[in-house]
Amino acid sequence: MAPSAVSVEANDVSHLPLKLDGAQNGSNGNTKHVEDVEMMESQDKTQFVLRSYRCLIADLCQQFNMGHPGSAMGMAAIGVSLWKYAMKYSPKNAEFFNRDRFVLSNGHACLFQYTFLHLVGYKNMTFEQLASYHSDRWDSYCPGHPEIEHEGIEVTTGPLGQGIANAVGLAMATKHLGAVYNKPGFEMVNNMTWVTIGDACLQEGVGMESIQLAGHWRLDNLRVIYDNNQITCDGSVDICMAEDVNMKMRASGFEVLEVEDGNYDVESIVKALVAARANKEKPTFINIKTTIGVGSQNENKAAVHGAPLGKDDVASIKKNYGMDVDKTLEVSQEVYDFFREAVPRGEKLEKDWNDLLSNYSKEHPELAADFKKRMNGEMLDDWTKYIPKKEDLPTAPTPSRKSAGAVCNPLAQNIGNFMVGTADLTPSVNMAWKGKVDFQNPDLRTACGINGDYAGRYIHWGIREHAMASVSNGMAAFRKGAILPVTSSFFMFYIYAAPGVRMGALQSLQVIHIATHDSIGTGEDGPTHQPIELAALYRAMPNFLYIRPCDGEEAAGAFMAAVAAKDTPSMISVARQDTEQFPQYSRREGVQKGGYVFLDEPDADVTLIGVGAEMAFAVGTAKVLRERHGVKARVVSMPCQRLFEQQPIEYRREVLQTRSRAPRVVIEAYSVNGWERYADAGFSMHSFGHSLPRSYVYGRFNFDNEKIAAKIKPLLDEVKKDGVGILRGEFRDLNTDYVRDVFHSAFGASHVAS
Amino acid sequence: MAPSAVSVEANDVSHLPLKLDGAQNGSNGNTKHVEDVEMMESQDKTQFVLRSYRCLIADLCQQFNMGHPGSAMGMAAIGVSLWKYAMKYSPKNAEFFNRDRFVLSNGHACLFQYTFLHLVGYKNMTFEQLASYHSDRWDSYCPGHPEIEHEGIEVTTGPLGQGIANAVGLAMATKHLGAVYNKPGFEMVNNMTWVTIGDACLQEGVGMESIQLAGHWRLDNLRVIYDNNQITCDGSVDICMAEDVNMKMRASGFEVLEVEDGNYDVESIVKALVAARANKEKPTFINIKTTIGVGSQNENKAAVHGAPLGKDDVASIKKNYGMDVDKTLEVSQEVYDFFREAVPRGEKLEKDWNDLLSNYSKEHPELAADFKKRMNGEMLDDWTKYIPKKEDLPTAPTPSRKSAGAVCNPLAQNIGNFMVGTADLTPSVNMAWKGKVDFQNPDLRTACGINGDYAGRYIHWGIREHAMASVSNGMAAFRKGAILPVTSSFFMFYIYAAPGVRMGALQSLQVIHIATHDSIGTGEDGPTHQPIELAALYRAMPNFLYIRPCDGEEAAGAFMAAVAAKDTPSMISVARQDTEQFPQYSRREGVQKGGYVFLDEPDADVTLIGVGAEMAFAVGTAKVLRERHGVKARVVSMPCQRLFEQQPIEYRREVLQTRSRAPRVVIEAYSVNGWERYADAGFSMHSFGHSLPRSYVYGRFNFDNEKIAAKIKPLLDEVKKDGVGILRGEFRDLNTDYVRDVFHSAFGASHVAS
Repeated sequence: MAPSAVSVEANDVSHLPLKLDGAQNGSNGNTKHVEDVEMMESQDKTQFVLRSYRCLIADLCQQFNMGHPGSAMGMAAIGVSLWKYAMKYSPKNAEFFNRDRFVLSNGHACLFQYTFLHLVGYKNMTFEQLASYHSDRWDSYCPGHPEIEHEGIEVTTGPLGQGIANAVGLAMATKHLGAVYNKPGFEMVNNMTWVTIGDACLQEGVGMESIQLAGHWRLDNLRVIYDNNQITCDGSVDICMAEDVNMKMRASGFEVLEVEDGNYDVESIVKALVAARANKEKPTFINIKTTIGVGSQNENKAAVHGAPLGKDDVASIKKNYGMDVDKTLEVSQEVYDFFREAVPRGEKLEKDWNDLLSNYSKEHPELAADFKKRMNGEMLDDWTKYIPKKEDLPTAPTPSRKSAGAVCNPLAQNIGNFMVGTADLTPSVNMAWKGKVDFQNPDLRTACGINGDYAGRYIHWGIREHAMASVSNGMAAFRKGAILPVTSSFFMFYIYAAPGVRMGALQSLQVIHIATHDSIGTGEDGPTHQPIELAALYRAMPNFLYIRPCDGEEAAGAFMAAVAAKDTPSMISVARQDTEQFPQYSRREGVQKGGYVFLDEPDADVTLIGVGAEMAFAVGTAKVLRERHGVKARVVSMPCQRLFEQQPIEYRREVLQTRSRAPRVVIEAYSVNGWERYADAGFSMHSFGHSLPRSYVYGRFNFDNEKIAAKIKPLLDEVKKDGVGILRGEFRDLNTDYVRDVFHSAFGASHVAS
Repeated sequence: MAPSAVSVEANDVSHLPLKLDGAQNGSNGNTKHVEDVEMMESQDKTQFVLRSYRCLIADLCQQFNMGHPGSAMGMAAIGVSLWKYAMKYSPKNAEFFNRDRFVLSNGHACLFQYTFLHLVGYKNMTFEQLASYHSDRWDSYCPGHPEIEHEGIEVTTGPLGQGIANAVGLAMATKHLGAVYNKPGFEMVNNMTWVTIGDACLQEGVGMESIQLAGHWRLDNLRVIYDNNQITCDGSVDICMAEDVNMKMRASGFEVLEVEDGNYDVESIVKALVAARANKEKPTFINIKTTIGVGSQNENKAAVHGAPLGKDDVASIKKNYGMDVDKTLEVSQEVYDFFREAVPRGEKLEKDWNDLLSNYSKEHPELAADFKKRMNGEMLDDWTKYIPKKEDLPTAPTPSRKSAGAVCNPLAQNIGNFMVGTADLTPSVNMAWKGKVDFQNPDLRTACGINGDYAGRYIHWGIREHAMASVSNGMAAFRKGAILPVTSSFFMFYIYAAPGVRMGALQSLQVIHIATHDSIGTGEDGPTHQPIELAALYRAMPNFLYIRPCDGEEAAGAFMAAVAAKDTPSMISVARQDTEQFPQYSRREGVQKGGYVFLDEPDADVTLIGVGAEMAFAVGTAKVLRERHGVKARVVSMPCQRLFEQQPIEYRREVLQTRSRAPRVVIEAYSVNGWERYADAGFSMHSFGHSLPRSYVYGRFNFDNEKIAAKIKPLLDEVKKDGVGILRGEFRDLNTDYVRDVFHSAFGASHVAS
């Protein structure tokens, strides 16, 4: 792959304290040939700062005898290059909209980021706060990995591979917003995203998926800085990696730059970063050789990765560095002076941009009004008016995946905040709207006739569910509310995406995941594609809404709940197959309460809890019970346990009729785990599913109104005789199962050999 | 990367119906230059077979109007090349030990595999069975994706990326067993693993992780065949992929071969496969250009991927191919004749190998005895004798991760079936035993001093949890019981590995996963590293044992249960921090029953259920209740819900004291979901965790004996007044929470914004 031409545009680096005389030619893979960059600070001062910083890191880990010193020390020169020379940011306003985003994908090196945030003057990161790393302060701004809640932290990182995926999402957000709002002379959004990685992000699948996507989309505003120290927890990287990483990154569409001495040679790093910033063709991979724990007696060993160095070693470092061995946690004024020019520089950046915004508002008033809404995290339009009315919904059986599309498509089509994508299942998930334009790089011309446009809002993620979720978190984090990412795939494959989905919940980032083909009803694809146990994960996940609507009306309610949940990601779980519509029973307001009375019956003998695609069995079984067995059954719909939990206790009691002695039976083709909170018994799955066409697979596991009714009748007889307590952990000498008789299909164990 | 020299050894291809005159030189990236391979069948006959096969595929999808015809049709020539010319196998004995393994990683193309299994004469794959694809036969051997239960299928594939990972595991098994058992003149194990992939395996993270590992380990017996049709569900691959795939594979350590015309040019494909078989240096990537749905009017379009072609199109194909349009599901005798020579060839292969085994048994009787044990899936030694005795366990507080190591290390050290690895957490997970030898390629010399050896049994997976689980499934599948893979990482990162863990459970493959750093007790790494909801997934997963031992004795019990479960994978979940030892209460036999009475108390007022690292709170709270509040509390340990479910009902009732009116309260620092089956209330997590040193984090969420006791006391008072029914869904006008009062920490919602 030929090196691309690189030229540095003056406005790109004018904020930097560098003198740039003449052309840059730094893209030949070796920045040592880049000339003409004159550093403002002397070599002596820079090296003193590096030494001071490294001692500080060693001390911060030593004080509570915990922490990860190695990478933070190794990356000292990278940090100086970034915060002093390369990045645009404003310490006094961490939220400055057009700031460069920095992501520490090697999140265990968090001290690296915390320390530079302190040194350049972020207001919350006081010295006391910095020194609270691994203390017992529960309100520390310095948790063991960077957390989005704190000033100057763009995303929570730590689980390896997530940060680089987030960085790709942040870079996409810039490209997209820039394509929509920038005008000649008004580069309102043109920030860079810088991400540091260790070896893990080159090994974790989600990292590699994200790298592919960044290369494909030609995100020239993404700069991946590889802290190449060749050490992981287990020892030298060559025990588990034999790749030619530069060759691979080139194959993936990255410009590759190298820095030989990443420990001390700030100038070469800065030159590489400047060259990277100037590349207008592709993302850049900056391979910087460093030494983990440099200065320590154990430098270049795994020992310095995740444990403090020890008192003697810290003393020895200070001695070798000519520092005062008796002083700990020392930051001299000289070091502060070195960094604190970042404050006025940031203020100037911000002022210039605010002036630009002012003029932009005059020149492009309508666009500017929209842009400000995005800056404020607002929707561009009233989304409620695009939710289909009940009377416009189909009444004939309809796959609920189609219903989900019918609700989502108008939202996506009309409201620019929505960016909707799929992991290569466009024909199956129904998320593509008429006239949708793909998010693609403008130079792209595909075999199937697509012309690229970063303003597009439909995303082909490829077969990369994990990156889909994790990169979406990055888009959502650019500015909360500015972009509402919607992902889609088969529900089963959200087990691939789960680490990313979790990180969204942890970060309170609103992303809506459309999980189609749920339950065994997906049919002939078989047990590999039939989720049984996955709902248990998502129902147990904090700050997450797992919503399983049963028909079009409930699908509308599901989206209303999900779009309204600004600080909580959601999953809307829908079926592949035709599902009966219940216009007489289903209510969108009920979905928003998590559960509600679906089919009422006074003095009922039993409450059936129906969910999603299996609601048809609840309603059908109620009918059979009434007509065939003389049993009065009411039906409750419970599409979302979490939303139900949030309702007032009186409401919940009424829905579940806790004053009645009638048992409650849930009907769902999943593992029953977790339903025991609401139900006394369950008709559920105790095994993996089976490959059969969708019209047969339910029957294979006895999901059949007659058969379910025939199981429930004798249970009710026993309850009548011995009291509902037999299902609730109060046993005498009955021959029922203990605690809760969770009965199930007689054929439920085909794949369970034990 | 220079092309490596390739020479074909006669014994490598002597079984093939090829005449090989002169040297092969097929490794220059273009097999069209390979000469001297004379095909035995005429071009006419071969092309007739391809046409017949493609019509058959089209018919098989058409009959029930379902299925994936495109790739199966596109790969016809690849299949002919594999099953007729390249692969060693014996249709009459699918289990022939030294057979080549074939994995269809693009599992949706299952008809491809089923049809060739039928054509070459696998006995179970009758024509009736083949024609049952997507029928309503619940006992079909032709499910929607290949399933390991059926003859000739090595692993269950379908979730994309899993198959290539399994193939890496199968290839590792060959290398390992070969290194241990082969002797000069006795190549007992030297089979190849062939895996076909579509674009997905080059995009899914787990696929890329596995590719890296195969390259690192130089698995020259792995042959990856890329069905390069450039079409995915969403259209042309260039909408989501811009990589130079050959360059990337070379960077990852693969030899790359290309075939231009994969639709018809069987000869070139065979030459490439033969050249690949002969490469003794590295794995091979064979990039074969095909046309999806070739012959269809919609060939080369996504439309032919996952839907039948339609009657008209099928008729048109037959017409163009000169076939009888009115005949469907037709296989002529000529086609059978073309393939059925595979039967005697396979019998010969098997006989030769059996003869070799006979001689091997004479020359190397001890080795042969061991080898036969492995062939029979037996352990090489009595594992029970290596489980530490209770009296040898420490009594002072010990991290349960250390206890797990103390149990596993002697097993791994002494019993050759164990292959134990970690996702780069050797210093943390305690799974490395003294004198362990790494599984590495023999040419490896690492910076940290390792000399490679395929006979090694300790695996450095790198930072690749997903591949660790999925590749381990492949090792376990080589011959059930021959290799018992043990994986290890932090519990939280088994959310990355979950898709692979699930596939092991679905396939009844015994793999033991050691999940350390469980619960919030992991401490300062923070909420990104503190599993809250993940146990809910693994407890709900069919055919899986999630076991949380509380101390060394329970760790012994956990391993006893896991090693004994030959058809079920397990996860042993242990803590990072010191956990109290309970030699007076804990019992290994109790763990094997899933739950047992830990601390008994006659006429108890409450049963506390303790689990894993939180057992200390159950025991401590019981003490406070007794001493401070005059409450009699008994304690039940429940390390494994699934094992407990398998006990006789009388046992379960006794443990839970279902005849008593005393409530049961579970104490666990996870989401409580699922415990409602056993407990009336829970002291649990309702939010993500928090970064604090391990000695503080429990307190942050009120996990403290005094505080828990202070919560339980008033609950018991209410129960005394109003009956335990208030906790079991029987409400009057009480002011308690509904159904089950799952109380929790007052600070439990720090990360939940809603």
